[in-house]
Amino acid sequence: MKPIPDANPVPTTTPAAIPRVAVTMGDPYGVGPEVVVRALADPALRQSARFVVLGMAEPMQYAADLAEIEPYWWRAPMDSPVASTAMAARGVALFDDDSVRLVGAPGGLEPGPTRDGGGVSFRFVERAIEMAMLPGADPLHVDAVVTGPISKEAWAMAGRQAYPGHTELFAQRTRAKRHAMMFQTPRMRVVLATAHIPLMDIRNALTIGRVFDAIDLASDACRAQGIVNPRVGVCGLNPHAGEAGLLGDEETRLIAPAIELAVAQGIQASGPYPADTIFNRALGGAFDIVVAMYHDQGLIPVKLLDWKDAVNVTIGLPTVRTSPDHGTAYDIAGRNRADASSMGAALRLAVTMAQRRAEAGSASESATAPAAVTS
Amino acid sequence: MKPIPDANPVPTTTPAAIPRVAVTMGDPYGVGPEVVVRALADPALRQSARFVVLGMAEPMQYAADLAEIEPYWWRAPMDSPVASTAMAARGVALFDDDSVRLVGAPGGLEPGPTRDGGGVSFRFVERAIEMAMLPGADPLHVDAVVTGPISKEAWAMAGRQAYPGHTELFAQRTRAKRHAMMFQTPRMRVVLATAHIPLMDIRNALTIGRVFDAIDLASDACRAQGIVNPRVGVCGLNPHAGEAGLLGDEETRLIAPAIELAVAQGIQASGPYPADTIFNRALGGAFDIVVAMYHDQGLIPVKLLDWKDAVNVTIGLPTVRTSPDHGTAYDIAGRNRADASSMGAALRLAVTMAQRRAEAGSASESATAPAAVTS
Repeated sequence: MKPIPDANPVPTTTPAAIPRVAVTMGDPYGVGPEVVVRALADPALRQSARFVVLGMAEPMQYAADLAEIEPYWWRAPMDSPVASTAMAARGVALFDDDSVRLVGAPGGLEPGPTRDGGGVSFRFVERAIEMAMLPGADPLHVDAVVTGPISKEAWAMAGRQAYPGHTELFAQRTRAKRHAMMFQTPRMRVVLATAHIPLMDIRNALTIGRVFDAIDLASDACRAQGIVNPRVGVCGLNPHAGEAGLLGDEETRLIAPAIELAVAQGIQASGPYPADTIFNRALGGAFDIVVAMYHDQGLIPVKLLDWKDAVNVTIGLPTVRTSPDHGTAYDIAGRNRADASSMGAALRLAVTMAQRRAEAGSASESATAPAAVTS
Repeated sequence: MKPIPDANPVPTTTPAAIPRVAVTMGDPYGVGPEVVVRALADPALRQSARFVVLGMAEPMQYAADLAEIEPYWWRAPMDSPVASTAMAARGVALFDDDSVRLVGAPGGLEPGPTRDGGGVSFRFVERAIEMAMLPGADPLHVDAVVTGPISKEAWAMAGRQAYPGHTELFAQRTRAKRHAMMFQTPRMRVVLATAHIPLMDIRNALTIGRVFDAIDLASDACRAQGIVNPRVGVCGLNPHAGEAGLLGDEETRLIAPAIELAVAQGIQASGPYPADTIFNRALGGAFDIVVAMYHDQGLIPVKLLDWKDAVNVTIGLPTVRTSPDHGTAYDIAGRNRADASSMGAALRLAVTMAQRRAEAGSASESATAPAAVTS
């Protein structure tokens, strides 16, 4: 793949179609508040959309003090009647959940997983998904959700162990039939066919359908960014992509048939290619996106090349969902040391994708409307 | 790991301890002759050792013509009595095997796998191993072997299908009890615990002993390059290194016990670490070498970062063996287009490792001799 055009800049939006983006603050005891406050401090970014942070005033204020940033948000109590008014203007609204009493030294919080932190960060995400699923005309509807880092351990402490992470919660609440993890950096896009399962469980998890879905969703995700006829490169599973069956049969049994199926549906997919050279070819411009068969196959190159700027995107959902590619980082939380680049990239990509989705939606409406009249 | 000191420069050797290095030309119809001729054209490299190319005069001459290089080698018929005289001086001897009549247009060869090309390239390697196994005092003894690219398909056409590649042939003929593949680039060293097997066969192939051997050999390989107390970083097998057993048990069942065993033997090994971030840590200076559990886990980062300068080293053998990290490249053979950097890096590393091995050998002799006298 060529360097991704413009490397995810702040999008230019028009007043008629300003996307609305919900941002969940993440665990209040992690780096979420810091990276949200610092990433949204970019005035150009704030002008590109209407942002609503689902969070808490206290850690946001603390993060702003640490970073010497003048608070730029309008606070409204979560779910209060004034909330929809707060979202009417450009800029940033903060929907404040003050139901939890945070613990810590004066002026600071004690980092680490807690029941309260897990509970409140779960509610932020739950509420953001509800807002995304509201009808487009609803004053509280959002077009995209950007999620701050949460702790699975804290979610489990709050009784939310049914959800190992954001992705599963989004998939369930939006009733997505299929979905996949995509990682986007300034230089590459990668989609995972399987993700958080033991490596040896791939034997049962990898099917023609699963590989096909990953290819199909990868192609859609590129189209959603304005790429016409995206070129999808597909990894093999085994060394040297199985070396014509000598080193494993998943390539001939599962991956090649999935590629054929995708090609038959008009997708420009090719492979399976040896995984140790496909990423070089992608960097050289051969593909717009690479489909990896498992977690480390896709994430080793992403993190090696562009760790700080990688964005995690859940594709296949009825809404746009992005997030930074890092966790709560409790070990450095509350010290203004967390790098906000990945959160900034996640916010910009969410605005871009929401905008393109809106454009595509209105284009298809205007394209189909006359046909309906004449039929 | 920090950038590897001096990034594998041409070694400075003294006349008293000039290493002897055998270089196999590889398949005559591939890029082997070109990269050997061009890499050894460096006068400083030629002065650092005594090189003997096991090859054929015709493709070497053709490659030199193409590259406009004045032939710099002394030709001697393979296994003729003058061969040992040819090796007595610094510079490059060519032991010429003229038993095969090469095919092709006048002034050029037809690239592709053939029975003759497979047979002759197999004999080069066989002969080089014999020379490496000769007693040190023998005039034909070599301290290291650098292998040019061969075609497994051509070896099979010549009836050598019992050997899928160089590594297996070296292991068998040198009676090595254990061995492993190492890849070295200017920025990282990686050892593979398993290599050319189907990914799903790792279930049976990965044992505590196998992981321990890889760690032990990795540490030895660093010592052989002059690193005192090398820091060995060990990859996990599963996503997030198994996330404390939630995503697979190989980390707790196999990898952690192997690391403990290595630590108990005085090796500075640590892990298992998530494979998607260990290579960033290695680049940042945290480890001298990384042990990967399988082929793509180790080779994705190597090829992504330093494809052209990567050297493949077989560790655990009684001799030094390196090779460039590319194949016969029949598609570009005979056109002077092949990049000789990897072959150059393989030659320099072989000289360095042979020299250090000689120094370590004489150091341990002088260290143990007095003890023997007093006991």
